[in-house]
Amino acid sequence: MTEKKDYASLAMEAHETWRGKFEITGRAPVTNSDELSVAYTPGVAAPCLAIQKDPARSFELTRRWNLCLVVTDGSAVLGLGNIGPEAAMPVMEGKCALFKTFAGVDAFPLCIQSQDTDEIVNTIVNIAGSFGGINLEDIAAPRCFEIEKQLIEKLDIPVFHDDQHGTAIVTYAGLINALKAVKKDISEVRIVMNGAGAAGIAISDLLLTAGAKDLLLCDSSGICYEGRERMNPYKEDIAKRGNPQKISGNLADAVKGADVFIGVSVPHVLSTEMVKTMNEDSIIMACANPVPEIEPEDAYAGGAKIVATGRSDHPNQINNVNAFPGLFRGCFDSGAKIINEEMKIAAAEAIASMVSEEDIAKGTITPYAFDPEVAKRVAKAVCDAAIKTGVAR
Amino acid sequence: MTEKKDYASLAMEAHETWRGKFEITGRAPVTNSDELSVAYTPGVAAPCLAIQKDPARSFELTRRWNLCLVVTDGSAVLGLGNIGPEAAMPVMEGKCALFKTFAGVDAFPLCIQSQDTDEIVNTIVNIAGSFGGINLEDIAAPRCFEIEKQLIEKLDIPVFHDDQHGTAIVTYAGLINALKAVKKDISEVRIVMNGAGAAGIAISDLLLTAGAKDLLLCDSSGICYEGRERMNPYKEDIAKRGNPQKISGNLADAVKGADVFIGVSVPHVLSTEMVKTMNEDSIIMACANPVPEIEPEDAYAGGAKIVATGRSDHPNQINNVNAFPGLFRGCFDSGAKIINEEMKIAAAEAIASMVSEEDIAKGTITPYAFDPEVAKRVAKAVCDAAIKTGVAR
Repeated sequence: MTEKKDYASLAMEAHETWRGKFEITGRAPVTNSDELSVAYTPGVAAPCLAIQKDPARSFELTRRWNLCLVVTDGSAVLGLGNIGPEAAMPVMEGKCALFKTFAGVDAFPLCIQSQDTDEIVNTIVNIAGSFGGINLEDIAAPRCFEIEKQLIEKLDIPVFHDDQHGTAIVTYAGLINALKAVKKDISEVRIVMNGAGAAGIAISDLLLTAGAKDLLLCDSSGICYEGRERMNPYKEDIAKRGNPQKISGNLADAVKGADVFIGVSVPHVLSTEMVKTMNEDSIIMACANPVPEIEPEDAYAGGAKIVATGRSDHPNQINNVNAFPGLFRGCFDSGAKIINEEMKIAAAEAIASMVSEEDIAKGTITPYAFDPEVAKRVAKAVCDAAIKTGVAR
Repeated sequence: MTEKKDYASLAMEAHETWRGKFEITGRAPVTNSDELSVAYTPGVAAPCLAIQKDPARSFELTRRWNLCLVVTDGSAVLGLGNIGPEAAMPVMEGKCALFKTFAGVDAFPLCIQSQDTDEIVNTIVNIAGSFGGINLEDIAAPRCFEIEKQLIEKLDIPVFHDDQHGTAIVTYAGLINALKAVKKDISEVRIVMNGAGAAGIAISDLLLTAGAKDLLLCDSSGICYEGRERMNPYKEDIAKRGNPQKISGNLADAVKGADVFIGVSVPHVLSTEMVKTMNEDSIIMACANPVPEIEPEDAYAGGAKIVATGRSDHPNQINNVNAFPGLFRGCFDSGAKIINEEMKIAAAEAIASMVSEEDIAKGTITPYAFDPEVAKRVAKAVCDAAIKTGVAR
């Protein structure tokens, strides 16, 4: 390991200097009476009336077309748990800086002082008319599923829970290239998905939609199967689709003979010995943060062919920053009213396409997270998919 | 009259070009892994935990200290009435541009899709932890009074309904200089306040707080007095304080012998003949927009000494832009938890102080609205008043 920087101290110092990681600037001149008469009263009445007549014009005459709400209840922030809305704000602000830097999206950070599902939904519905899209962030499972579902039903703008679907997209993107590297097909591999929270459920769902047939979702009680104890409707759904044979057992049982291990769970639950029991040319995506389910060197020692983690100091980082900026850019460019499965899959394929065949052959499955080309390619693919599937405004 | 520009057409064209009058930009670099580790994960956990331990640190480590929410329900936008939240957005965006331009305040525009008082209050309370102050805008009376009252009770950041208190501050500022010009004292003049909506009530309240003793509030039913029909608790309160003798009658009766007429009502309700019945050296502040209660030339013809309107194409424009930017700047600079009467009066006196004795003697009572010095002086006065009255954080 290289020497680690003390990012905690550096971050405190930087945050005290920045006093906020975003800023709101004006785009219209208002420095004299004539300018004010155009940007404000009396001229402003004209665009107001145009929008009153046709609310869709709010996407042309106000900032709505490019404005994403980044919103949390502070209940599942980083690995810190429920730290409340004010304390969640530095994370939301950071996310907004990423949106702007990578995709030119105006993102506004907001923390809601409630952890009641209906109250959160009502609050967001009440303000959604000012935004072009909603990025839900760091909301604890299973509340996050219900909030997302209700918002999608009630709103006609894209609603996206990044911890679920952003993670699913970048994980699937990595898996596309990993499977290429080992020359296996998604429909023929056994995938062990360890962790059945927001991310684990969403990854499972996307992989099954993308063609996976054999997927064992594991939680702290072992393999999920229909009718097991300690299930919930979300686990039940994945178990039915990915484990129709109702295979049971613990994580060690699950990985035996499996081709792919994906972890969004806890540190060091996968051992070298367990990897040894996997199928030849195994793929390990150990994304628990900051400490992965298995250290890369231990995975390789067990015979893994491809290893990825969530960490920036290892190769093959699975990083949401590859997905959400370009995804919303593509939504806003197309005027998409929803984000459908086709758009998510298009985003994953676009991310995967950033890695050359040559690099894939050498074991690289993810692009450099800060390559500005990633968001551009994702945006284009998502925009095209939205138009093709008829969800564009 | 000079030739008028077609501001409606100019505004439509400009709004179609701008596609939004504000923009959100990043203040922290996030272009590589090292920068991201400071602005985002893993470093960001440190400021999050610091705020969790002491929520007041949210004013130091996030943008909250400089962030004002400009929020409406769209129920009383300009003179357009209830046009709904999307259609209100161009006005809110314009307001935000003014906040930034004149006082460096980051202001975010939001429209709430509800016109139920409790729902509006709940929505704002739920998101208030992300902001340093709340500017209520274009909410219909009497709902606006109840919303403001509840928010002030529930929140520990400044809450300000500009249509009420901003208007009251700039009106009182104009009156300070007008009374100087005619050498009369506020405690000795009779003031007729025509219009008993949000602005009329707030102006009356501030003038009575600032020393006025004889103030006849008039609505479409004539002079308000205790026990009259078609009253409400707000009119009742002003009537008790400003009209203890329970004077009754219509507007013409009210202005007879009065020193000051202030209008926030409807076009052309005051005639030259009525002005002729006023006391010597009468002051007319005819602020109905866009058409005043009396045209300036007609007011002068009736013997008025000082005339002001809400229009930029007449001298002595009573313009809220003189108050709200500097007021919030002063709140944010002092960390004020509320906006009290002392701060409003300090703001009005600061605005008034921008006009020289010489100019006052010539009949000028308001400063040039776009003089950047106004907001600076208001901010300083408000900041000092907040500290002096012990409401600073």
